[in-house]
Amino acid sequence: MSTPTSSPLREKLPLHVYLERMTLEEKIAQLIQLAVPFFEGATDAGQITGPMASLGITEETVRNAGSVLGMAGAQETIRVQRTHLERNRLGIPLLMMADIVHGFKTIFPVPLAIGCSWNPELAERSAQIAAKEASVSGVHVTFAPMVDLVRDPRWGRVMESTGEDPYLNSEFARAFVRGFQGTDLSGDPDRVAACVKHFAAYGAAEAGRDYNTVDMSPRQLREFYLPAYKAALDEGCEMVMTSFNTVDGIPATGNAPLMRQLLREEWGFGGVLISDWGAVKELIAHGIAADESEAALKAIRAGVDIEMMTACYAHHLAELIGSGEVDEALVDEAVMRILQLKEKLGLFDNPYRAADPEREKEIVFCDEHRAAAREIARKSGVLLKNDGVLPLKPTQRIAVVGPFARSGDLLGPWSWTGSQDAVVRLADAIGGKLSAPAGLTVAEGCGIETWAEEQWTEAAAAARDADVIVLALGEHSDMSGEAGCRADIRLPGAQLELVRRVHALGKPVVAVLFNGRPLDLHGVFDEANAVLEAWFPGSEGGLAVADLLFGDANPSGRLTMSFPFSVGQVPVYYNAFNTGRPQGAPDAQVRYVSQYLDIPNEPLLPFGFGLSYATFEYADAKLSAETMTPEQPISVSVRVTNTGAVAGIETVQLYVRDVSGEVVRPVKELKAFRQIELQPGESQVVVFELREEQLRYYHSDLSHSSDAGAFVAFVGANSRDNVSLPFRLVK
Amino acid sequence: MSTPTSSPLREKLPLHVYLERMTLEEKIAQLIQLAVPFFEGATDAGQITGPMASLGITEETVRNAGSVLGMAGAQETIRVQRTHLERNRLGIPLLMMADIVHGFKTIFPVPLAIGCSWNPELAERSAQIAAKEASVSGVHVTFAPMVDLVRDPRWGRVMESTGEDPYLNSEFARAFVRGFQGTDLSGDPDRVAACVKHFAAYGAAEAGRDYNTVDMSPRQLREFYLPAYKAALDEGCEMVMTSFNTVDGIPATGNAPLMRQLLREEWGFGGVLISDWGAVKELIAHGIAADESEAALKAIRAGVDIEMMTACYAHHLAELIGSGEVDEALVDEAVMRILQLKEKLGLFDNPYRAADPEREKEIVFCDEHRAAAREIARKSGVLLKNDGVLPLKPTQRIAVVGPFARSGDLLGPWSWTGSQDAVVRLADAIGGKLSAPAGLTVAEGCGIETWAEEQWTEAAAAARDADVIVLALGEHSDMSGEAGCRADIRLPGAQLELVRRVHALGKPVVAVLFNGRPLDLHGVFDEANAVLEAWFPGSEGGLAVADLLFGDANPSGRLTMSFPFSVGQVPVYYNAFNTGRPQGAPDAQVRYVSQYLDIPNEPLLPFGFGLSYATFEYADAKLSAETMTPEQPISVSVRVTNTGAVAGIETVQLYVRDVSGEVVRPVKELKAFRQIELQPGESQVVVFELREEQLRYYHSDLSHSSDAGAFVAFVGANSRDNVSLPFRLVK
Repeated sequence: MSTPTSSPLREKLPLHVYLERMTLEEKIAQLIQLAVPFFEGATDAGQITGPMASLGITEETVRNAGSVLGMAGAQETIRVQRTHLERNRLGIPLLMMADIVHGFKTIFPVPLAIGCSWNPELAERSAQIAAKEASVSGVHVTFAPMVDLVRDPRWGRVMESTGEDPYLNSEFARAFVRGFQGTDLSGDPDRVAACVKHFAAYGAAEAGRDYNTVDMSPRQLREFYLPAYKAALDEGCEMVMTSFNTVDGIPATGNAPLMRQLLREEWGFGGVLISDWGAVKELIAHGIAADESEAALKAIRAGVDIEMMTACYAHHLAELIGSGEVDEALVDEAVMRILQLKEKLGLFDNPYRAADPEREKEIVFCDEHRAAAREIARKSGVLLKNDGVLPLKPTQRIAVVGPFARSGDLLGPWSWTGSQDAVVRLADAIGGKLSAPAGLTVAEGCGIETWAEEQWTEAAAAARDADVIVLALGEHSDMSGEAGCRADIRLPGAQLELVRRVHALGKPVVAVLFNGRPLDLHGVFDEANAVLEAWFPGSEGGLAVADLLFGDANPSGRLTMSFPFSVGQVPVYYNAFNTGRPQGAPDAQVRYVSQYLDIPNEPLLPFGFGLSYATFEYADAKLSAETMTPEQPISVSVRVTNTGAVAGIETVQLYVRDVSGEVVRPVKELKAFRQIELQPGESQVVVFELREEQLRYYHSDLSHSSDAGAFVAFVGANSRDNVSLPFRLVK
Repeated sequence: MSTPTSSPLREKLPLHVYLERMTLEEKIAQLIQLAVPFFEGATDAGQITGPMASLGITEETVRNAGSVLGMAGAQETIRVQRTHLERNRLGIPLLMMADIVHGFKTIFPVPLAIGCSWNPELAERSAQIAAKEASVSGVHVTFAPMVDLVRDPRWGRVMESTGEDPYLNSEFARAFVRGFQGTDLSGDPDRVAACVKHFAAYGAAEAGRDYNTVDMSPRQLREFYLPAYKAALDEGCEMVMTSFNTVDGIPATGNAPLMRQLLREEWGFGGVLISDWGAVKELIAHGIAADESEAALKAIRAGVDIEMMTACYAHHLAELIGSGEVDEALVDEAVMRILQLKEKLGLFDNPYRAADPEREKEIVFCDEHRAAAREIARKSGVLLKNDGVLPLKPTQRIAVVGPFARSGDLLGPWSWTGSQDAVVRLADAIGGKLSAPAGLTVAEGCGIETWAEEQWTEAAAAARDADVIVLALGEHSDMSGEAGCRADIRLPGAQLELVRRVHALGKPVVAVLFNGRPLDLHGVFDEANAVLEAWFPGSEGGLAVADLLFGDANPSGRLTMSFPFSVGQVPVYYNAFNTGRPQGAPDAQVRYVSQYLDIPNEPLLPFGFGLSYATFEYADAKLSAETMTPEQPISVSVRVTNTGAVAGIETVQLYVRDVSGEVVRPVKELKAFRQIELQPGESQVVVFELREEQLRYYHSDLSHSSDAGAFVAFVGANSRDNVSLPFRLVK
């Protein structure tokens, strides 16, 4: 690894000495995070326009700033760091942070898709590759993983989560942190520090509208929303980002009970807490700060170490300390946490860390990484329906029709470091599978949100001689992601019209969906012979989808978020409570049960659901004993047989219900899952151990324990299709 | 007033003597409420079928039972009471309870409609008449008012609430209680005891599905959901009914923190607490009771005095007392509360109270009551749109088209004691307004949820020569009310098709809506020249609607629940929080604000909205001072002028925003309103006093106080159209 020889690196001092030598202004500037254009040496240095210009940041603050937002590229980061160290009085290096969410240049499927792999090892691998590419490009910290539990598909940011289950999200949270940070962040410059976000409960935005109010009981927060953040921290995640929303009436960024008491004291988090973009100043709009000074006061008291992209700290912390409203010790501890992270990353020894323009060329978007992206995309696609039309055959004449037929928009939101140019288009990937090039015809048919009759004419011509029509449909990547919320979660009307007309042609239709949220599939699901949910599958997504369509890979993804019957059913999620009048109970009345008059209670497709080209039969589900004690776990076993004609991967899922608790408990909770690959005709007995700890929950006094009594274990293929096995916990 | 001479009434004893003389079985039976068929003397006595048969209630329990559910009719109640007293060992009379929600035989508009009158005096009058009719028919207690705050129009029971505002709901809660109970329940047999429901927060059912989980922060509960129940109790409401839902993870009916600590201890409620129908046993389905015994245990410990329609108390309380798990004192205090209510109602002196078959004939559905119903229905209709087509003229040829043209289904849910036979149909009422009978044509056009081409043919013929088409549209009464939840809140497709075809005729169209919830009005609002929301207007609704259409009454209703843009926007309500990234802020970005990509944030029609045939101009809005102190209220004044050609009623509304609080505060909160009637050209200055108490709210520690700082008062015609007046609170 080469580092620049002309480094202005100075002798490293003990951290407390830096702190002692720093002026108050220098300390406060460490708490500021500014975007790239503020910094000398950056390509777009000085291009401070719009909201950024109004920040009123002085040159001195930039010179003393602690970190940079959104920088990447080895040459540039080295240049900026070098310039900074030349100008910074004490020679404290900058932390380079960036949103490396699902890949750097090699873009992986969006996190919701990776979640559907039900394979945390793949998540870890994707994060490891992202870290390696980012690190060699000069990035030190990524603003990931996002582990917000989500139940509302209107919210655009569901694409960045792994879904609706606290246990599964926790497993993925751990995996992503392991992938980004490795086991020894100090000793491994190919890793970056992770920053788990958005603390807390950002995913519960009311009415699925981004940044909207979150309100829930403290128990709901602890039971469902907090576990994944805690899992990330248990895995050693170095940083935490505050969420934009309120938690119990107070915006997270100014929420001392959440940050000081819960995060720092109860959980013992000693790392760096950063605000989300502009969130400190947004305390004013939220209405808990009268001005920037009060915003700074509430944020620093809550324990926010770094203020991202607003200048409340820069402008007001000194006067707040002067007036005695803020104890300088709060600033000192924030600075110390930032310095500790810089030291852990080795920046005082090598401020450029892994940044290396030569190695960057070798590593970034290398074949090995792209192969991994293709593999992960194969494992993330979820086959939602198949009447036998899939897999396709190389000898078939195939029309690829739809706005995603030739689209490079397969990377999804949060892929600013990636490039659509490198994306193999779906039509090309399908063409590459065919025996005869003439077997492929391609047409858009319509735009993502636009209809033009001549496009349809072209599509009808393309479909005329085809044996099968592959409809490439979806949402463009701005229709999900941050602030990408939709009140109507169907495909846009133009595409539904396209489906209607293609369906009317009477030929077999395979719908492939590229999108960032669970959709209301009315107008698609019944009209297609097969439906493959490809999500935004990333750089190699076109190839991976073709692999799945032709059976070169066997679909194995399983949904981690329910697909609602319609938006009027939202929120709908599998781990809900039973109510006092559940639908389908033996003594249920016709009318007076918890139901809608016009639609079912059940989602169209449940949590855990997904098809394969193989078929799996479950038999001999049983418990080792019908009584569990705290000392004596029980085991749940089931024999799974591949009764299909091809090898396939099945994800065996174990759920539990606590029949009667001190507070109400979900009708099912995922407790374990196991992925097995079976050859045709092969059987395997899957055994899960189930322990008393797994039956604990938050009681009315927020204590975490289990109750003796009746339970049910469910083992099967998804949250709907499984076998019930009653047992008792005796204490 | 005549009472039966052969009354088996025995000498009244002091209440504690009854208690002392009662066996444990007799005490427990006082806590049981059974439906009419269980009782000797009832018309359908002994017809115990279905779920009732499985209750396993013994004859002895019936003989000792404390109260009856759903009985009405003077002769029958007298007969049942007499028989009961002949058989009851201690001669303790039965309490006769029934759901008299919006009228007894004279049916008033549904409560959501009454709320839209913004006139609590009318609510009081409706309740007073309902009480008088019910009381003379033998009813002692009504299960009303329902004061649940509602934000989700999918929930069918929004029709039973007065809307989304805690202050307005509280005003109506008080008015209904005053109307039912009067000021001296003991001395006024024309009144009945009220039972406020459903405690607590039943209106917040998740996903708008009845009986579904409710989860919110304790502050949200206190700030928005609890005030109306408290207001009812402050007005002296005798009883409280538990809700079906969970509150903080525990079903209300087994929720000791809610019932013992909050309701009894903190609020000092000493009256009778009754479960909702079957709610004690439903603790099992909820999953906090393993069996009926535990359900009884949790309910009695929570303080539920009467178990409605399940037999957990009957079957298990004795053994729970025997085993020491339940202190008999809990039963004693429940019995004593029930005896006290019987005493207050005078039942020990006259167990038939006001029941009187002769007087019943005079009072029930008398002309005076019907006139009041017509007046209240006129004041409840909300004119949502009018391009000048309204009011109609007697000389016009009018086609009344739609499934509600000749429908008697104008009473709405909860009108079991009313009769559709007495309802004047809308077409008949309109016909009665016309100069020439030949000017009226009538046709259904379609069913409420069904389409038949021949119906359309008939409608097209009816419309052919008309000058104006009145479309009578809506939901049948089972489409709202308890368990009447809809995921799609548009009019049914058949009616939307009817609107489309009628609109295509090119004639002026007036849509009149009969329904129980705010609707998504896509497909109606833009297609009609005028839209009148009639709700379910009650017995005299047809006449009242005709009065409004022809300008014999001037519409003055104002919405108390937002009409959403679409179901994908739900919940949407005016008193929401601002978020940190509000839409429309001066520095807002294009994308990164709290919004949907596809629809506006604002509802189609906001809280407080409604049109008139008059027009009102607001001017000279001002504050008496820009600084308020706890000792020095300020006043807000505005001059309102009727600039129209007819007299009209305007509801002047005052809202306040606390710009910066210790916790986030709503963007607007209704603080006062004043209804004024103005002649054409007349002006009036409306003055509101605003006091520090009105600025108090629940802080993070749940203390209730105000914060010094910036506020804004808004005065105007509704929650959207008003003038901002900033002021400061100085403490």
